[in-house]
Amino acid sequence: MSKDKNHVTEITPQSEDFSRWYIDVIKKAELMDYSPVRGCIVFRPDGYELWENMQRELDARFKETGHRNAYFPLFIPESFFQKEKEHVEGFNPELPWVTEAGGEKLEERLAIRPTSETMIGHMYAKWINSYRDLPLLINQWANVVRWEKRTLPFLRTSEFLWQEGHTAHEDEADARRETMTMLDVYTDFVENVLAIPVIKGQKTPSEKFAGAVDTYSIEAMMRDGRAVQAGTSHYLGTNFAVAFDIKYLSRNNTQEYCHTTSWGVSTRLIGALIMVHGDDRGLVLPPKVAPTQAILIPIGPPKTREQVLAKTDELYAELKRAGVRVRVDDRPDLSPGWKFNEYEMRGVPLRIELGPRDLESGVCVLVSRVSGEKKQVPLDGLTAEVQAMLEQIHREMYERALAFRDEHMFAVDTLDELKAAYEVKRGFAYAGWCGSEACEKQVKEETGATSRNIPFDPAVTKSRCLVCGEEAKHTVVFAKAY
Amino acid sequence: MSKDKNHVTEITPQSEDFSRWYIDVIKKAELMDYSPVRGCIVFRPDGYELWENMQRELDARFKETGHRNAYFPLFIPESFFQKEKEHVEGFNPELPWVTEAGGEKLEERLAIRPTSETMIGHMYAKWINSYRDLPLLINQWANVVRWEKRTLPFLRTSEFLWQEGHTAHEDEADARRETMTMLDVYTDFVENVLAIPVIKGQKTPSEKFAGAVDTYSIEAMMRDGRAVQAGTSHYLGTNFAVAFDIKYLSRNNTQEYCHTTSWGVSTRLIGALIMVHGDDRGLVLPPKVAPTQAILIPIGPPKTREQVLAKTDELYAELKRAGVRVRVDDRPDLSPGWKFNEYEMRGVPLRIELGPRDLESGVCVLVSRVSGEKKQVPLDGLTAEVQAMLEQIHREMYERALAFRDEHMFAVDTLDELKAAYEVKRGFAYAGWCGSEACEKQVKEETGATSRNIPFDPAVTKSRCLVCGEEAKHTVVFAKAY
Repeated sequence: MSKDKNHVTEITPQSEDFSRWYIDVIKKAELMDYSPVRGCIVFRPDGYELWENMQRELDARFKETGHRNAYFPLFIPESFFQKEKEHVEGFNPELPWVTEAGGEKLEERLAIRPTSETMIGHMYAKWINSYRDLPLLINQWANVVRWEKRTLPFLRTSEFLWQEGHTAHEDEADARRETMTMLDVYTDFVENVLAIPVIKGQKTPSEKFAGAVDTYSIEAMMRDGRAVQAGTSHYLGTNFAVAFDIKYLSRNNTQEYCHTTSWGVSTRLIGALIMVHGDDRGLVLPPKVAPTQAILIPIGPPKTREQVLAKTDELYAELKRAGVRVRVDDRPDLSPGWKFNEYEMRGVPLRIELGPRDLESGVCVLVSRVSGEKKQVPLDGLTAEVQAMLEQIHREMYERALAFRDEHMFAVDTLDELKAAYEVKRGFAYAGWCGSEACEKQVKEETGATSRNIPFDPAVTKSRCLVCGEEAKHTVVFAKAY
Repeated sequence: MSKDKNHVTEITPQSEDFSRWYIDVIKKAELMDYSPVRGCIVFRPDGYELWENMQRELDARFKETGHRNAYFPLFIPESFFQKEKEHVEGFNPELPWVTEAGGEKLEERLAIRPTSETMIGHMYAKWINSYRDLPLLINQWANVVRWEKRTLPFLRTSEFLWQEGHTAHEDEADARRETMTMLDVYTDFVENVLAIPVIKGQKTPSEKFAGAVDTYSIEAMMRDGRAVQAGTSHYLGTNFAVAFDIKYLSRNNTQEYCHTTSWGVSTRLIGALIMVHGDDRGLVLPPKVAPTQAILIPIGPPKTREQVLAKTDELYAELKRAGVRVRVDDRPDLSPGWKFNEYEMRGVPLRIELGPRDLESGVCVLVSRVSGEKKQVPLDGLTAEVQAMLEQIHREMYERALAFRDEHMFAVDTLDELKAAYEVKRGFAYAGWCGSEACEKQVKEETGATSRNIPFDPAVTKSRCLVCGEEAKHTVVFAKAY
């Protein structure tokens, strides 16, 4: 579907301009296109399929942990936002409003949902009556809208796709358990499916979700050293239960407010996996979500073409039967070299080359997108080799990303040290923090870095606040973030 | 999650008030709830899972026929609607408008998509350059909004969920082939998955999609004799290609307009399957989409409870492993009789009863929701029996629906005959039609019935128009419709 099928166009090197590299690869690999609506993108098939594959993996994990899907309205009455004070302050500036419909002005404006706590809170109040109805564990796959001033494809768009889990519990302990279970589900998914190592921790009060008691996040490092929040899980306490009157009859026959949670990941994960794994040749897609896991390329002169193609088709069918997402590129008018570049740019994890001499010897060549390793393997038992190599590519991608992250984490004692560090390097900084919002704000103003989270398991601990020098309450990870 | 877990509340009999029966069952079976937004419903987990199961079946069929999914923006600029004259006239009265966002009044109003022909047309014009880019075969799963005056849960709601396929082709023949392929995909799906027989045909010009050259539909009969359009497929000619400038360089090196199609089914299919299969005891869900295909109910006195439960758990695990969507209800405080009624009301296709004497004899009892048939089967090999019985239930549901439909189809020669028929019976009427909109309109005004479609394969053909008596161009199916 590309306009210029006849060559692989140049991609700006990451080291020259990371932002341009990013836009170059996602456009050239046809993951997305800009739309005529401000801040909204089109997810083209290869971009959307990344999301579909993520959805399948996440949805299975949600169901295994006892959740079911449901669907709530896109529109949220204006009055709903007024009910939870912090929530309205957090989201009001970003809302689009429907004011007319069906040819008439509406009596009450309707917001397009930026998240569904309020609507779901309203419904839960109707559905929950007794402790027997708890826990109520529901997830929603949906589009949401936040009218962003600065947008970046996948990472920050006005409309995006996500899932939002909303659960209600008898007490704080059960709700906190759920909050952590889902943070663990996200960690497992992002690390073991997307091959992205994350730092798990708690958000500082100024960075938490509008209306939450506590927000937890997993944070990932992009190849420019900046952070992307890859998933969040919120313990909401009784804030929304009080606002929407979600009460239940307890085991002791008393009326109690539920403790609720919410948690979500979004299509920004598409942006994250591109920025974590990509290189100057283009995308590098994690095998477990790549739309095409293996590309089969027949090579050799016209006179052997028919034989080679016959075998290619056979291998294709065999791999497909085994569940490998495989494609064949047998277009005769394009050279093997062009195709090699093309599928490297598109991030296909594994290339399978088959030529006439390979055919004679009963072998083919597997080439890894991540390491460039070439491996001659017998055609007999190819499927097992392919599956093993895809597993290996996943591991290599995770390890490469982890090594990169570890090389780009450092610790500082003072704000001046952090400023000096950012003059010469990029990455995440561990630093002590006294707990005051003023100190956190000063870091942001002077360095552009924000507190990402208070890691559960920091590699380094610091005893003094980097700004005021008082005793540190926490060791925080600071980073410039998307 | 129900407020009254202790009894199965009464359901209005279908014969007394079909509409009340419908609302009673969907509320009591917890498929949906009303939302605080006019015309929008909440899809509760059992309702949403029907849609998830439909999506899985449809999506596999779309991919088998060469389509890929993508995602386009929710918002459509006002100017886009102006580009195709019939389209704007068809949809303008139903659009909700976003006029403010991010704290500012928008320069151009944005409609919430009622369908995406215009947005997708705009993007296709950018993506399509040469015949090598064709056919372009894309589907979208999305929410859409049409601000309806009269709404009915699932069947007609302001916001609903659907899929919309949009394809572009080199010429009319290829586009028409696609239009028919997708109508066949829908027919296969609705008949073989939802167990609903359909009448396949072409819409009359007054009933076709706003902007289409030809619209085709499949029409299903509900148990009150009314019709539901269960799927539509449109040949759009070059109407949208001209409006959005979707051109390609042909094999003859000339610039040509694409021929495009679109096709869709929506969550109204949930309403249809309820109204086709349900009875006075509640829902009857087609096994292939039922969230719970089989409910396992242990019975007998407390002293044998432990043994029975152990075996129940074993059978549950065995069935689940085989891919059966099975659940166990072992709540000790509810009687078997209550549970039998409850799961009949919820439409679970198959009940499995296991008591202490069954256990001694190595058997259990299978009970079909549709026929009420009871069958004692050995515990050894239960899975195969269950799978066979689910297949049988599917066939019986289809046959029952087909027999009902055939009993409620009749033919008329004149409008007076149709009016007289509707005094005493309900159903679909075959009638001749001269092709004039005036005659079609008169039928609607005098009987409330509209032309559903011109069936490809009518059981009866008529030679005179039922209204004017002139020569009939077509035999049309008329019916009152949802």
